[in-house]
Amino acid sequence: MKYLRKYFPIMEWGAAYSGKIAVNDLVVALIVSIMLVPQSLAYAQLAGLPPEVGLYASMAPLILYAIFGTSRSLSVGPVAVTSLMTLAAVAPVAAQGSPEYAGAAMALAFLTGLILIILGFLKLGFLSNFMSFPVMAGLGTAVGLQIAASQLTPVLGIPSEGGTFLAQIISLVKNYSQINIYIAAIGVPAFIFLLMVRKYLANLLTRAGMSKGLAGILAKMGPVIAIIITILVVAGSGLDKQGVKIVGTVPTGLPGIVMPPFDFKLWSQLATPALLIAIVAYVGSISVAQTLASKKRQHVDPNQELLALGAANIGASVSGGFPVAGGFSRSIVNFEAGAETPAAGAFAAIGIALVALFLTPLLYFLPSATLGATIMVAVLSMVNFKAVIKTYAYSPTDGIAMALTIILTLTLGVIFGLIAGIGISLMMYLYRTSRPHVAIIGQVPGTEHFRNIDRHDAVTSSSIVSMRIDESLYFPNARFLETKVNEIVASHPGISHFILNCSAVNSIDASGLESLKAINQRLKDSGIAFHLSEVKGPVMDGLKKTPFGQELKERIHFTQYDAVYSIDPNLAKHTLESKRVKPAKKQENGE
Amino acid sequence: MKYLRKYFPIMEWGAAYSGKIAVNDLVVALIVSIMLVPQSLAYAQLAGLPPEVGLYASMAPLILYAIFGTSRSLSVGPVAVTSLMTLAAVAPVAAQGSPEYAGAAMALAFLTGLILIILGFLKLGFLSNFMSFPVMAGLGTAVGLQIAASQLTPVLGIPSEGGTFLAQIISLVKNYSQINIYIAAIGVPAFIFLLMVRKYLANLLTRAGMSKGLAGILAKMGPVIAIIITILVVAGSGLDKQGVKIVGTVPTGLPGIVMPPFDFKLWSQLATPALLIAIVAYVGSISVAQTLASKKRQHVDPNQELLALGAANIGASVSGGFPVAGGFSRSIVNFEAGAETPAAGAFAAIGIALVALFLTPLLYFLPSATLGATIMVAVLSMVNFKAVIKTYAYSPTDGIAMALTIILTLTLGVIFGLIAGIGISLMMYLYRTSRPHVAIIGQVPGTEHFRNIDRHDAVTSSSIVSMRIDESLYFPNARFLETKVNEIVASHPGISHFILNCSAVNSIDASGLESLKAINQRLKDSGIAFHLSEVKGPVMDGLKKTPFGQELKERIHFTQYDAVYSIDPNLAKHTLESKRVKPAKKQENGE
Repeated sequence: MKYLRKYFPIMEWGAAYSGKIAVNDLVVALIVSIMLVPQSLAYAQLAGLPPEVGLYASMAPLILYAIFGTSRSLSVGPVAVTSLMTLAAVAPVAAQGSPEYAGAAMALAFLTGLILIILGFLKLGFLSNFMSFPVMAGLGTAVGLQIAASQLTPVLGIPSEGGTFLAQIISLVKNYSQINIYIAAIGVPAFIFLLMVRKYLANLLTRAGMSKGLAGILAKMGPVIAIIITILVVAGSGLDKQGVKIVGTVPTGLPGIVMPPFDFKLWSQLATPALLIAIVAYVGSISVAQTLASKKRQHVDPNQELLALGAANIGASVSGGFPVAGGFSRSIVNFEAGAETPAAGAFAAIGIALVALFLTPLLYFLPSATLGATIMVAVLSMVNFKAVIKTYAYSPTDGIAMALTIILTLTLGVIFGLIAGIGISLMMYLYRTSRPHVAIIGQVPGTEHFRNIDRHDAVTSSSIVSMRIDESLYFPNARFLETKVNEIVASHPGISHFILNCSAVNSIDASGLESLKAINQRLKDSGIAFHLSEVKGPVMDGLKKTPFGQELKERIHFTQYDAVYSIDPNLAKHTLESKRVKPAKKQENGE
Repeated sequence: MKYLRKYFPIMEWGAAYSGKIAVNDLVVALIVSIMLVPQSLAYAQLAGLPPEVGLYASMAPLILYAIFGTSRSLSVGPVAVTSLMTLAAVAPVAAQGSPEYAGAAMALAFLTGLILIILGFLKLGFLSNFMSFPVMAGLGTAVGLQIAASQLTPVLGIPSEGGTFLAQIISLVKNYSQINIYIAAIGVPAFIFLLMVRKYLANLLTRAGMSKGLAGILAKMGPVIAIIITILVVAGSGLDKQGVKIVGTVPTGLPGIVMPPFDFKLWSQLATPALLIAIVAYVGSISVAQTLASKKRQHVDPNQELLALGAANIGASVSGGFPVAGGFSRSIVNFEAGAETPAAGAFAAIGIALVALFLTPLLYFLPSATLGATIMVAVLSMVNFKAVIKTYAYSPTDGIAMALTIILTLTLGVIFGLIAGIGISLMMYLYRTSRPHVAIIGQVPGTEHFRNIDRHDAVTSSSIVSMRIDESLYFPNARFLETKVNEIVASHPGISHFILNCSAVNSIDASGLESLKAINQRLKDSGIAFHLSEVKGPVMDGLKKTPFGQELKERIHFTQYDAVYSIDPNLAKHTLESKRVKPAKKQENGE
C-alpha cells in the first residue's frame, strides 16, 4: 500500500479530496484552459506541427501528471525550449507537413518519456546535474533569440529557410524585400499589444485596486484577447485572400490512441535529442515545481517527478502529440489562481478537450502572425545577456562556459550547443577536482598538531616528508597524486620516509588504490618507506582487505603524531615539549 | 634559455653528454634495436599494414622522443593497443592493402600527434584522467583477447572476416575446417616456444648464475630466435608454395618525408579514434615512464610528455608510419640494458634504419605465422580476469565498470567499448559527488563546538536547524543541496531559522550560487531566515560582490556559535556553560 502511494501520489491527496476543493479546482481549470489554448497552438506552430497537435499535447499529459506528479502546481504541456528542440530533432529526418514528420514527433515524445521513466526507476535523476546553471541559462538566452528570429517569418511574412539563429538571420536579411505588409499589419500591432500587456497591465490593474494575483492572471490573458481581435479582423476584412496565412480547418474531435512508428533507424536518430529533451524538460520542471512547492512548504519528490514527466510524455506520444514539460508561465497561473491539487490540471485537460471538440471552427481565421507574436513575446523574457556578465564577474570560467553555450547554440544549433556546453562544464569540473589542494605538513611546536608548513611555523625532519591531500582519492586526481609524490620525492633527495596524511580522504576508489600501490612500489624502488596516517574507518575497512593494506599494515598510523613518533621519537617528543609558537597566519583564512 | 630548456629537455642531458655515456648508450641501442625489429613487423601486421611501415614507425618517433621527452628510459614505437585501435579506425574508411589504407593510417598518426601537442600546449593533460583504472585495465584484457583471436588467422591459417572479438570467434568457428596444417605446423610450435621462453627462460638463466638484468633481456630475444629459425625452415623446405604466407619482398631503403592526405571528410571520420588513441597512448606511456623514472629518483614532466609523444606521432606520420606510444616491454629492455639518456633511443633508430637499408631481403621467407605467434604471446599477458574480481571485491561499482568495459569492447569493438567505459566512469563519479555528506549539527554541551547530532549528544533548538555540507558547492551537487534543504524544512515545521555551516565548502561555482539564491528565496517565502556560518575567506570574497551576499550580510556569521548566539543567546550560553558530555561515539570513526 505504501509502495503504491509512493508511485501514485494521487492516492494521498485524492483521499482527502472534497466537494469544496473540487469547486476551487474547477474555477482554476477554467482560467488555465483558456490560457493554454493559444499557447498550445503557438508551440505546435513553433515545432513545425499542425495546430491540433498542440491541443492533443495538452490533454493526456495533464491527466497523467495529475496521477503521478508530486507537485500541486506544476502544469505540463508544450513549452518553448522543448518545442524548438523537437523542430531541431525532427526536421532532419522528415519533411515538415508530412505524416512522417508528425510520426517522428510522436516517436520523439515516446523516447523522451521512456528515457525519463528509465532514469526514474534507476534513480538516475542526478544525471540532470550535467546541466549546470551556466549551460541552462546560456541555452535559455540562445533559444529565446533563435525562436524570436524564427517567428519573424509568420509575423512579417518574410520567407526563411529555418535552421540555426545564424542561418535564419542570413535568410531574413536576404529575403527582407519579400515582407508581406498585410501580414505585418497584423503581426506588428499584435506583438506591440502583447508586449504592452505583459509589461504594464498587471501594474496598472493593481494600482487600480485589483488584487495582485487576479491582476497577474488577467495580464496573462493578453494572447486570448489578441486571438479574438485578429480572428475578427481577418474574418471581417478577408485579408486571408491577400496572402495572410491563417490556421484554416483544424480537425474537430479528440485524438485516438495511436502508437508512434517503431522504426529502428528513426529511433536511433532521435535517441540523442530525446535524451537532451528529457534532461532539459526535467531540469526546467523540477526547478519550477520546487520553487512553487516551497511557497507553501510542500515537498516535491525529484525521482517521482521523473516518472510523472515520463508518463506525461508517453501520454503525449500515444495521443498524437509531441514532447512536453512543466512550463513556468502556465504553472504560475495555476499557482496564482489557487490550484489546491493536481486535479486542477486534469480539469484543464477537459477544458481543452471541449475546445478541440466544439470550438476549432472558430479558429479558422486565426492568423499565424498572432501566434508568432505570442511566441516572440513569451521567449524574449528568456533572453538575458546581463547574466553572462554577472556570472563572469562572479566566476570567470562559468561565465565563459555560458558565453560559449550561447555562441555555439546560435551558430551551430541547439542540440550541438547543448552537448558542447555540457562537455565544457564537465571538463572544467574535472579540471578543478583533478588538482586538489595538497600541503606539506609539519608539527606545530608544543602540540601534537600538524599543519601546512607554508602557513605555520611547523617543525619538519630532513628524513621525513609528510603530505596532506584535501580530497578523496578518486580517478580524476589519481594521476595528479602520483605526479605530486614523484615531484616531492625528486625535490627532497635526503628522505627515507614518506607519510601521506589521509585526514581529508573520505573514500578511495579502485583508481586511487592503484595509484597508492604504484606510489608504494616506486617509493620502495627509491628506498623510501611509505606510511599512511589518520585513515578514516570506512576507508580502512576497504584497505584492510587488499594486499596493499596488508603490506603497509605496520605503517598505517592512527594519528600523524604516531607516524612521526614511530620513525623519529626524539624529534616528535622534543617538538611536543617545546614552547608553542603563535601561528604565523600568513593568509587571512586557515588552510 | 630556460624556456628553451623546458621544451627541449635534450639541452639538459645533452650538455653533460660524454664519450663514456655514448659507448654505454650504443650497446643498449644494439640490444634494443634487435628486439624492436620483430615487434615492429608484428604490430604493422596487426594494424593491417605492410611490414616496412612497422620499421618506419620505429625510427623518426625514437629520434623525436629523444629530443623532446623527459623520460630517460621510455622507448616509443608501435604498441599492441594503439595498433589494434589503428586497425579499428582505418578499416571502415579504406580497403586493407590499398594506398588509401596506408594514407589513412598516416593521417591518423598525424591527428593523434596534433591532438597530443594541442593538449600539451593547453596544459590539458588532466583530460587523461577520464581514463580511470577500471577502464584502462578492462580495455587491456579485452584488447588482449581480441588481438589474440585475430592472430589465430596467421597462426593457424583459418580465414576470418575480422571485426570485434565476438565477430572473429564466430568467423573462426564457422571456418575452422579451413585450417592450413602447414601454417599451423609453424605457428603452433612458434607459439609454444615463445610462451616457454617468456615464462621460464629468465628464471632458468638466473638459476644458472646469470645476472637478473641480462637474463631478462635474453628472455626477450625469443622472437628474434623464432624468426631466424622459421625463416630458415621455410626457405629450406619451400613451404611458402604450400600456402604458408610469408612476408615477401620488403622494400629496401629509408622512408621519405611524405605528408598524409589532407581530406576533410577523412579527418573528421578519424577525429574521435585519434582522440582516444592519443589518450590511451598518453596514459600508457606516462605510467611506464613514471614507474621507470622513480627507480632512479628521476622526474618525468607530464605536460612535456604530451608534446614529446605528439612530436613522435607527427614524426611517425610524415615518415609513412602509424600511431605510436611508449611501450612497456621495449622500455623495460631499454631500462634493464642500462640506457643512460634518451640518446640510446636515437641510436636504436639508427640500428633499425640499417635493417631497413640492408637486411630486408633476409626477411623474405619470414612466415606471418611467426609474427602472429609473437603478438599472441605478447598480448596474452594483458589479459587479467582476476583483476575484475579483485576490483569488485574492493569497490563493486569499479568492478562493474571494468566488467562492462570488457564486455562492450569484446562485443561492440574497442572504440565503442572505450567510450562507454569512460562514460560509465564519469557517471559513477558524478553520482558519488552529487550526493555529498550532509549532517544536522548541534552544540556539544560545555563547548562552542557543533557536531553531527546523529553521532554526538548535541543540543539543538526547536526554532533553528543547522546543516553542515561536507563538500564544495559545485554544479554536480547544486540540485541535491536544494532538494535536501527542502526536505529538511518540510520535516521541521516549527523552524524560523536555517543555518548552513560552510566549514567544508572550499568554493562555490555559479550553479552553487544560484542554488543558494533559490534556497534563500524559498526559505523567505516560507518565513524562514537563511544564515551562513564559517564561510572561508576566498569564498567570502566572491560572495561579497553579489547581491545575494549583500542581502545576507548580517546573517553571515564568523563561527557557528556566533550564528546560534545571534538568534538564541540564552540557549547558546546555557549550553556552553553546562557540563560536557562525553561523545557517544555511535560509530567507530568520527564524522
